[in-house]
Amino acid sequence: MQIAMIGLGRMGANMVRRLMRDGHHCVVYDRDAEAVARLAAEGASGAESLAALAAQLTPPRAAWIMVPAGAPTEDTVAALAEHFSAGDVLIDGGNSYFKDDVRRAAMLAPCGIRYLDVGTSGGVWGLERGYCLMVGGDAEAAQRLEPVFRSLAPGESGIAPSAGRIVARTAGRTAAASATEGWLYCGPSGAGHFVKMVHNGIEYGLMQAYAEGFDILRNAAAEALPPDQRYALPVADIAELWRRGSVVTSWLLDLSADALARDPDLSKYSGFVQDSGEGRWTVQAAIEESVPAEVLTAALYARFRSRREHTFAEKMLSAMRQGFGGHVEPPKA
Amino acid sequence: MQIAMIGLGRMGANMVRRLMRDGHHCVVYDRDAEAVARLAAEGASGAESLAALAAQLTPPRAAWIMVPAGAPTEDTVAALAEHFSAGDVLIDGGNSYFKDDVRRAAMLAPCGIRYLDVGTSGGVWGLERGYCLMVGGDAEAAQRLEPVFRSLAPGESGIAPSAGRIVARTAGRTAAASATEGWLYCGPSGAGHFVKMVHNGIEYGLMQAYAEGFDILRNAAAEALPPDQRYALPVADIAELWRRGSVVTSWLLDLSADALARDPDLSKYSGFVQDSGEGRWTVQAAIEESVPAEVLTAALYARFRSRREHTFAEKMLSAMRQGFGGHVEPPKA
Amino acid sequence: MQIAMIGLGRMGANMVRRLMRDGHHCVVYDRDAEAVARLAAEGASGAESLAALAAQLTPPRAAWIMVPAGAPTEDTVAALAEHFSAGDVLIDGGNSYFKDDVRRAAMLAPCGIRYLDVGTSGGVWGLERGYCLMVGGDAEAAQRLEPVFRSLAPGESGIAPSAGRIVARTAGRTAAASATEGWLYCGPSGAGHFVKMVHNGIEYGLMQAYAEGFDILRNAAAEALPPDQRYALPVADIAELWRRGSVVTSWLLDLSADALARDPDLSKYSGFVQDSGEGRWTVQAAIEESVPAEVLTAALYARFRSRREHTFAEKMLSAMRQGFGGHVEPPKA
Amino acid sequence: MQIAMIGLGRMGANMVRRLMRDGHHCVVYDRDAEAVARLAAEGASGAESLAALAAQLTPPRAAWIMVPAGAPTEDTVAALAEHFSAGDVLIDGGNSYFKDDVRRAAMLAPCGIRYLDVGTSGGVWGLERGYCLMVGGDAEAAQRLEPVFRSLAPGESGIAPSAGRIVARTAGRTAAASATEGWLYCGPSGAGHFVKMVHNGIEYGLMQAYAEGFDILRNAAAEALPPDQRYALPVADIAELWRRGSVVTSWLLDLSADALARDPDLSKYSGFVQDSGEGRWTVQAAIEESVPAEVLTAALYARFRSRREHTFAEKMLSAMRQGFGGHVEPPKA
Repeated sequence: MQIAMIGLGRMGANMVRRLMRDGHHCVVYDRDAEAVARLAAEGASGAESLAALAAQLTPPRAAWIMVPAGAPTEDTVAALAEHFSAGDVLIDGGNSYFKDDVRRAAMLAPCGIRYLDVGTSGGVWGLERGYCLMVGGDAEAAQRLEPVFRSLAPGESGIAPSAGRIVARTAGRTAAASATEGWLYCGPSGAGHFVKMVHNGIEYGLMQAYAEGFDILRNAAAEALPPDQRYALPVADIAELWRRGSVVTSWLLDLSADALARDPDLSKYSGFVQDSGEGRWTVQAAIEESVPAEVLTAALYARFRSRREHTFAEKMLSAMRQGFGGHVEPPKA
Repeated sequence: MQIAMIGLGRMGANMVRRLMRDGHHCVVYDRDAEAVARLAAEGASGAESLAALAAQLTPPRAAWIMVPAGAPTEDTVAALAEHFSAGDVLIDGGNSYFKDDVRRAAMLAPCGIRYLDVGTSGGVWGLERGYCLMVGGDAEAAQRLEPVFRSLAPGESGIAPSAGRIVARTAGRTAAASATEGWLYCGPSGAGHFVKMVHNGIEYGLMQAYAEGFDILRNAAAEALPPDQRYALPVADIAELWRRGSVVTSWLLDLSADALARDPDLSKYSGFVQDSGEGRWTVQAAIEESVPAEVLTAALYARFRSRREHTFAEKMLSAMRQGFGGHVEPPKA
Repeated sequence: MQIAMIGLGRMGANMVRRLMRDGHHCVVYDRDAEAVARLAAEGASGAESLAALAAQLTPPRAAWIMVPAGAPTEDTVAALAEHFSAGDVLIDGGNSYFKDDVRRAAMLAPCGIRYLDVGTSGGVWGLERGYCLMVGGDAEAAQRLEPVFRSLAPGESGIAPSAGRIVARTAGRTAAASATEGWLYCGPSGAGHFVKMVHNGIEYGLMQAYAEGFDILRNAAAEALPPDQRYALPVADIAELWRRGSVVTSWLLDLSADALARDPDLSKYSGFVQDSGEGRWTVQAAIEESVPAEVLTAALYARFRSRREHTFAEKMLSAMRQGFGGHVEPPKA
Repeated sequence: MQIAMIGLGRMGANMVRRLMRDGHHCVVYDRDAEAVARLAAEGASGAESLAALAAQLTPPRAAWIMVPAGAPTEDTVAALAEHFSAGDVLIDGGNSYFKDDVRRAAMLAPCGIRYLDVGTSGGVWGLERGYCLMVGGDAEAAQRLEPVFRSLAPGESGIAPSAGRIVARTAGRTAAASATEGWLYCGPSGAGHFVKMVHNGIEYGLMQAYAEGFDILRNAAAEALPPDQRYALPVADIAELWRRGSVVTSWLLDLSADALARDPDLSKYSGFVQDSGEGRWTVQAAIEESVPAEVLTAALYARFRSRREHTFAEKMLSAMRQGFGGHVEPPKA
């Protein structure tokens, strides 16, 4: 089917490629004219402006917005809405906060423009591996977009039917067969990004679990330990090992093994770790639901801490220690 | 090769079966004569006692002990050592504390008995999927046991070479090829169980990350939330979905999807969660190394808390709240 | 000076009493006519409605609102604003979210009504001990209210000049002498409630630290421990002991000692612990500032957990454990 | 009464002074002869060796060991035991692990030497404020030492009877009146150090709660926040304020206020925070008792983290992020 893509960064551009592979007709726009030209050279219809893009689409239109969350998405939705009309569909495929989706959908409803929020997981691997899609918003619009979701998603083969691999599809379960294809309609406006948000929250927790475990392995040779209980462990081999038959096999472990195989010291990384909104929003959602989420929160805080040389909190500790015990800190290094 | 197995529970019995499939000759013993008889019927040589078992083995002997950690393992090692002599190998394949391995290896060294500690992951899936083996102790003994390790381990095929799956084996890397077969010599006595311990510590963290995430999904329809931000999410479908193309795909997610597909309410579980020694020892190791391990520890504590109706800590909080604010608790339910 | 008090619950009524003790003239209102009558009998001027209250005040008026945060405060501010005019001062002394203060102050500014947000700590002890006041908002209005703040606050004597007690007033420090009297102008609109919010966040953390410590003391006699390392500790005596000369002396410890002296088992408490908004907002503020706040957050989550019999997260753990290890939960108790 | 003190560091020397003030006769020893000479000049009997010290004491002897935990204490106990005999009392007043007390007491029992473990809180303030004493071990020996405990402890006046201060001594409660004097017999060998250990564990938690709260206050002016929700808060004044009438008043807050009054930026501290054994042992005890101790553990981990520039865990996170998302870290600063 015909679909517009706005935002041709790494994600957006590869999604267009995957859609075109399946025969969809893509009309594309980006502020960067070169990005448009590149995809036009691969078969997409390039547009010079949002107005031009809207004009190139046959109603009922469908446009997928793949730009950074926050102001860029907000502005693009508003700008595009001016060129769209009743029955057209706007899809926010970025990492928006689900409450923004609720607000935007309500704002567009009076004009009859339908709004879908689609959490999209896949990163740099999506072109090859497919994109896992979590869809929220207008149910009818979601149904209309099914061919697009199906092309972007990994499909049934997205999961490897290896020997010990569990195939969870129970006989007789028919609802949401789409989940087995790698895309899912999750509920009304915001539901897609809510599910994606929690997905990323879990991702933070999983990453931190591996990270702490490997930190313990790595420090098993510390001099503070008794000599007969010190181990210089082959961390790269261990990561590789655990990919086979262990309880902790996962895609994140695959990636870790790959990185450690290249450099077991990870010496090219400083350990300064960014976080995006989803980790924070997941904690916020947990609090709004009164759900204790220790692990997901600790994973977020570990990233906060990684970005500061020292916290004021730590200085407070030093000051108190000196106050009650006369303890003096080692001099600033 | 010839190998003895002591302890024919779920793990031990299936390991014998997997070994026999590969043509190894297994001499087996268990306190439960029926367990011995069952495996004898499948081709193993049954022994009526440890003495008999030792007598049935051709030196240099090798015996794999697969009994619960703590006293049962300790007693079995001691008892078997009496019937073994210089050059024989004792293998502790259970979940022992690595410091016990260090002690036992030192204790057996004067008599020339070699001791291996083998962390074994695989659970009920091991027979089919293979066992991921982490080996510590006498290097020569480990080398002698390679045929056994190779048969128990998943082998190269243990990891599914699916499209998006990363194959971490970098060209030219030759050391520890065994890791790609699913077994690894990790270092001197205790190293095998140390690595297995951290493996399980990570496992706790991963499990808790998924658990918290699904708890947030599940409570997204809580009445305390604004009506237009409440979602009755299809948790089973979401688990199935994330198995395809998402960043959080893993074997634990496969298992979660399977369980949720059977019953999205998990109503047959009460939520009373046991922990075994490894989670605790991992935290202890982190502390000995001065490694912050927030996530692994939080995962352990969540299990502690799950087993108590209310903690004394919580009563203290209520008492303090009444003390400063006159706050009264709701009556005991 | 003349001041109105709206909301005559435990806090509001005692604040009126403390103000009258110091010779202030209080005009009081509450939806509950009996509460008004009670204070009128003690010397206050009772009002039958907000309109009547506004009429009884001589401009420039000042009214202290001491009703529950959220809708009640919002409605009272709006209703009272209709009867107030330029130069009058509205004071929100409840536990409002600081962002609501920012919004309300901006809303009232066009009409010239000044708005103060005053975080008020003191609880049931305030009448006797004084109220610790954290003031935000219009600086001039705050200055005008100084006599009221001074009467409500504990004053210099609020801190006991005991032997080992540190007197922090450094010679020559003159700014904010008011802090030594127990009240402080903290900054523009929202600053008062922001500081009170963090105060309560810290309170949660302190309480949880004591609570966990006493839990460990209390369980030191657990049967799982080696017999010669088991202690039946006198927790009430220990709380009393630590009040003298130890590093952990505090008012919360005083309260704990009092509660434990009455009943070392705290058997009248169930351990179902409420939380108010401040704990949650503190975590939210930490996240907005990218400040890791592990302890404050863990304290909040412990309360969430205390109110649930079992979490869905725990059932997920049980389901996964059964999935990979065949572990069966004990039957529901 | 007559008492020996071994170890004349800051703690030991001041304890001798406080004992002499009350008329006790102190025989003192330290490896540093000057330290001995200083106290001899103040009235103590100096000893040149442990043998000389033992000879100067009239049986039944009593010696208080105040040297660093671990090897120094172990060695001193062993050395002194050679000069002591049945009925004499050895007191370990340092920060020993309670399991070491259990072992030592059992080791000395056959010779009839009694052993007391006394957790001692007081730091640099103890001389003036008194030492809070937690006593474990031989009950009869503890009774014999009461005059010493009474002189070292803060006494009834150790707690300030300020207006709002709760006096927890309930009428009719007679047991453990000593707690109100600031010392307490807690139970058999190890009980004293166990209670002191938990005391320090709580101390870590309290400190971290304040530290995080002040970190949030301090960062309330961060540029990432909306301009009308940014506050440049007077942290020193706030600490001073909270000492009066608030729920979070405590001795640690007194110390914090003092430090912040001197320098609100705490610029002379780097934020490199040591931890002693007690915090670690408290976590270990919590785990042995299956008590969830999130806050005490998080406080410990914050110190671990403060001492590392970056963790291997953080590098793992960066590596995974690059693996799945192509995210590149900022260059090493």
